[in-house]
Amino acid sequence: MPSPSTHPTSISIPDLARMLEIEPPAEAAATELTGVATIRAAGPQDVTFLANDRYANRLKDSQAGAVLVAEDYDGTAPMPMLRSPQPRLAFAKLLAFFHPAKPRKTGVHATAVVPESCTLGEDVYVAPYVVLGENVRLGDRVSIHAHSVVEDDVTIGDDSELRSHVSVRDGTVIGKRSVIQDGAILGSDGFGFEPLPDGSLHKVPQVGTVTIGDDVEIQAGACVDRAALGVTSIGDGTKIDNLTQVGHNCIVGKHVIMCAQVGLSGSTTIDDHVMLGGQVGFAGHTVAGAGAKVVAQSGIMKDLEPNKIYAGTPAYEFKDMFRAATILPQLPNMMRRLKKLERAAAEAAEQD
Amino acid sequence: MPSPSTHPTSISIPDLARMLEIEPPAEAAATELTGVATIRAAGPQDVTFLANDRYANRLKDSQAGAVLVAEDYDGTAPMPMLRSPQPRLAFAKLLAFFHPAKPRKTGVHATAVVPESCTLGEDVYVAPYVVLGENVRLGDRVSIHAHSVVEDDVTIGDDSELRSHVSVRDGTVIGKRSVIQDGAILGSDGFGFEPLPDGSLHKVPQVGTVTIGDDVEIQAGACVDRAALGVTSIGDGTKIDNLTQVGHNCIVGKHVIMCAQVGLSGSTTIDDHVMLGGQVGFAGHTVAGAGAKVVAQSGIMKDLEPNKIYAGTPAYEFKDMFRAATILPQLPNMMRRLKKLERAAAEAAEQD
Amino acid sequence: MPSPSTHPTSISIPDLARMLEIEPPAEAAATELTGVATIRAAGPQDVTFLANDRYANRLKDSQAGAVLVAEDYDGTAPMPMLRSPQPRLAFAKLLAFFHPAKPRKTGVHATAVVPESCTLGEDVYVAPYVVLGENVRLGDRVSIHAHSVVEDDVTIGDDSELRSHVSVRDGTVIGKRSVIQDGAILGSDGFGFEPLPDGSLHKVPQVGTVTIGDDVEIQAGACVDRAALGVTSIGDGTKIDNLTQVGHNCIVGKHVIMCAQVGLSGSTTIDDHVMLGGQVGFAGHTVAGAGAKVVAQSGIMKDLEPNKIYAGTPAYEFKDMFRAATILPQLPNMMRRLKKLERAAAEAAEQD
Repeated sequence: MPSPSTHPTSISIPDLARMLEIEPPAEAAATELTGVATIRAAGPQDVTFLANDRYANRLKDSQAGAVLVAEDYDGTAPMPMLRSPQPRLAFAKLLAFFHPAKPRKTGVHATAVVPESCTLGEDVYVAPYVVLGENVRLGDRVSIHAHSVVEDDVTIGDDSELRSHVSVRDGTVIGKRSVIQDGAILGSDGFGFEPLPDGSLHKVPQVGTVTIGDDVEIQAGACVDRAALGVTSIGDGTKIDNLTQVGHNCIVGKHVIMCAQVGLSGSTTIDDHVMLGGQVGFAGHTVAGAGAKVVAQSGIMKDLEPNKIYAGTPAYEFKDMFRAATILPQLPNMMRRLKKLERAAAEAAEQD
Repeated sequence: MPSPSTHPTSISIPDLARMLEIEPPAEAAATELTGVATIRAAGPQDVTFLANDRYANRLKDSQAGAVLVAEDYDGTAPMPMLRSPQPRLAFAKLLAFFHPAKPRKTGVHATAVVPESCTLGEDVYVAPYVVLGENVRLGDRVSIHAHSVVEDDVTIGDDSELRSHVSVRDGTVIGKRSVIQDGAILGSDGFGFEPLPDGSLHKVPQVGTVTIGDDVEIQAGACVDRAALGVTSIGDGTKIDNLTQVGHNCIVGKHVIMCAQVGLSGSTTIDDHVMLGGQVGFAGHTVAGAGAKVVAQSGIMKDLEPNKIYAGTPAYEFKDMFRAATILPQLPNMMRRLKKLERAAAEAAEQD
Repeated sequence: MPSPSTHPTSISIPDLARMLEIEPPAEAAATELTGVATIRAAGPQDVTFLANDRYANRLKDSQAGAVLVAEDYDGTAPMPMLRSPQPRLAFAKLLAFFHPAKPRKTGVHATAVVPESCTLGEDVYVAPYVVLGENVRLGDRVSIHAHSVVEDDVTIGDDSELRSHVSVRDGTVIGKRSVIQDGAILGSDGFGFEPLPDGSLHKVPQVGTVTIGDDVEIQAGACVDRAALGVTSIGDGTKIDNLTQVGHNCIVGKHVIMCAQVGLSGSTTIDDHVMLGGQVGFAGHTVAGAGAKVVAQSGIMKDLEPNKIYAGTPAYEFKDMFRAATILPQLPNMMRRLKKLERAAAEAAEQD
C-alpha cells in the first residue's frame, strides 16, 4: 500500500511530551518513536491515540510504543501513556509532526487557460486544465488544482487552495488561507422563481455575489449559492462539510461548524460559533443565535436563541425533545392505557 | 469589490412604476434611480426591496431612494414606496432592468473536443475543454461552459445552457431554454441491484435515458439518473434546486418546485405544480398528486392527494401534524399525568 | 429519440424462458421477441416486466408480446406470462440480453496527462483531459472517462471504471471491477477540526487514505473522505447511491446497500449486508450489526443489532416506531382526552 508521506523522523517519548507541552510519562522507555498509527495498526515505534473510550479495550492488544489519552482517562494501557488536557489537539500535532505536508507545487501549467487580464501573485500553482476567466486576481501562494474553473472577476487571497473540479462563479471573493475541497461550487445561481398567473415559474435574476472569509474550509461537493442581490457570506474560520447547501443571501458568521449535508434555505443567518449536526435543515429567513447547537437531522422553523441546544423537526430545546423522543415508542401503550382509564371512568359514571 | 454588471441606466420613480405596471407613489421626488440594492447597502439613487416584513424596521435607517413593498404593506418607510400586488415578481423585473445579462459568448474554443458527427446550431458557445461525444446535436444559441462533458447521442434544444463541470450521459435529451447549473449530473446509472443467493448484489443494467423538458432549471450538483428501461423525465418549466436526487424512472411533471437536497427514490411520480420543501424524501413507486405541497424534511411513504399539504415522517396532512408536533415536547408530561390518573384509579378501585 | 443500443437480436418465447431458466408459458405464440420495453411503450415484439403489482391494471392495454411476472403473481395478462421466482433478476438478464454493453474504448487520448512514473495495464482507456498524478497504477482494462483526476500514488484494479469528473485523491486504492460514477469524490479531506481556546477551529491533518474493494459501485456525486489516520474502507460488493457522504475512518463491510443521500459521520462501522434507506444519518462511532436494515430518513445515535429493522430519529426498532408513528397525529386528541379524565378525577375527588 502506498504511504502518503514517509520520512525518517524519530523522537523520544520525553521529547514528544515536551513538544505537546505535557508531562512525560513516568514509565517512559528508551523507545524512539517514528510514526503515528491507529491502535490496531501501530507497531512498537508508533505512538497511537485513544480517540474514544469505547475503544479502550483494544489497547491491551496494541503493539504501540506509546498512547495519547485524555488527561482524565481512568483506564489502563500496556504502554506509556501521554496524558493531555486537549488530546484531540495533541493528536493533530502528532499528525502534523509525523506527516509534514508535501512541498507545494508552483508554476502555471501549459494547458491552463489564463487570460492576460488576470493578476497572479508570487509562487502560485495553476494545475493542468484550470480555466480562469477575465480579471481573476490570485494572491501569493494560491494553489488551484486540476480542472478547477474560476470565472470572471474572482479574487482569491494569499495561501488559499482550490482542489480539483471546483467551480467558482463570477465575482466571488475568497479570503486568505481558505481551502475549497474537490467539486465544491461557489456562486452558482440561487433558487429564486416566482409563480406567474399561468402557473409557470419566472426566474428571479441572481445578480449578487459570494464572499468567503479567511481560514474557511468548504469541503467536497458543497454548494454556496450567489445572492439574488447583495451577498451570500461565510465568515472567517468557518468549516463546512461535504455536500452542504448554503442558499442565496445566507449570512454565516465566524468559526461556525456545519456537518455534512446541512441545508440552509435562502436568507438564513447563522451567528458566530454555531454548530450544526449533519443533515440539519433551516427554513428561510431564520436566525441561529451565537453559540447555538443543533442536533443532526433537526429542522429549524424559527429563530434559535444563543448558546442553547436544539433537536427535532420542528426543533425544540434538546432537553425537552430528548425526553419526548425516549417516550415516543411508548405512544401505542399510552393510548391503550388512556382508553382503559376512559372505560373505567365511563363504568364508574354509570354506577353512580 | 468587483461589480458583476455596472452600467449607466437611470430612471425616474414614476417611469419605474410605469415599467412595473403599478401606481407611481404620490410623494415621488425627482430622484433618478440608477440601481437596485439591499436595504442596508442601498444609497439615495438605489431602489430597494422589502422581501419580508420582519425586516421592516431596517427601512428607517436605509438610504434608499425608493422601496418596493407589497400592496398591502401597512408599515411606514422614510422613502417613496412602490406598492405592487406581486412584489417578488416586480423585484425580479428590477433586477433584470438594472443588471441586464452580459452578452453571451459564441464560438467553439480550440481546446473543445467536437467529433465530426456532431451537429451544431447557429451561434453556439462551446467553452475550453468541453468534451462532446459522437452524434451530439446542439440547437441554436446553446452555451456549454468550461469542462462540461456531453456524451454520445445527446440532444440539447435552442437557447439552453450548461454551466461548468456538467455531466450529460449518452442519449439524454434536453429541451429549449433550459439551464443546467455547475456540476449537475444527468443520465448517470440508476441504483438497481438485485441480491443473489450468495448475498452479493447483481447490477441491473440501466439502459434507459433521461428527458428534460423546456424551460427547466436544474441547479448545482443535482443528479437525475437514467431509467433502468424507458425514461426518467422532467417536465417543462420545472425547477430543481442544488444537490437534489431524482432516481431512475421518476416522472416529474410541469412547473414543479423541488428545494435543495430533495431525494426521489426510483419510479416516483410527481404531478404538475407540486412543491417539495428542502430535504424531503419519497419512497419508491409513490405518486404526488397535482398541486400537492410537502413541508421540508418530510418523508413520503404513500401517495399524496392533489392540492393538500403534507408534513412529517411518515407524512400526514400538515394541519394534523402541526398540532401533533406542537404537543410532542409535552409527551413526558403526559406520561406522568397518565400514571397519576392510573394510580388514583387503582386506589379508588381498592377502596371500593 | 436516440436509442442507446439497437441491434437485431431476436428470440422466441420458449428460448427466452430457457435463457431465464424458467418454464416456458403454455400459451406461448410463435412471436419472435426483439426487445424489452416498459408496459406502456412495449410493442408486439417486446417483452415487458411487471415491476410492481400496482401497475398490473396497465397490462390489459399493453401491446407487449410477453410479460415477465413474479412466480406467485395471481392476476391476469392478455399476453403470455413468463413466471420467475426472481423476477427482478430475470429482468436484469433481459436488459443485458437485448441491450448488450457497447464495446469499450481503449487507448490513451493525446490530451490526457500521464506522467512517466505511472504504470498502465493492458487495454486501458484514458479519455480526453484526464489528469493522472505520479505513480498511478492502472490494472488491465481500466477505463477512466473524460476529465477525471487521479492524484499521486493511486492504484486501480483490473476492469474498474471511472466515469467523468471523478476526483480520486492521493493514495486511494480501488479494487477490481468497481465502478465510480460521474462526479464522485474519493479521498478528499475528512472533517476534523478542534476548537482552540480563542474559539477558532484548528485543522486536524487528514493523513490517512481510502480503500475501495472489488465489485463496488459508488454513484454520482457521492463522497468518501480519506481517514484522519489509517483508512476509510468500503468492502467488496458494496453499492453506494448518489450524493451519499461517508466520513473519515468509516469501515463499511461487504455487500452493503446505501441509498441516496445517506450520511455516515466519522468512524461509523457498517457490517456486511446492511441496508440503509435514503437520507439515513449515523452519528459518529456507532456500529450497525450485520444484516441490519434502516428505514429512510432515520437517525442512528447508538449501535444497531444485527438483522433487526430500525426507524425514526432517534431510531428504535421499526415495529415499535411504526405503531408510534401511526398514532402520532392523534396526540392532540390524546391530550384532550387526558385533560377530560383529569377534570373528571378532580371533580370526583371533590365529591368525596
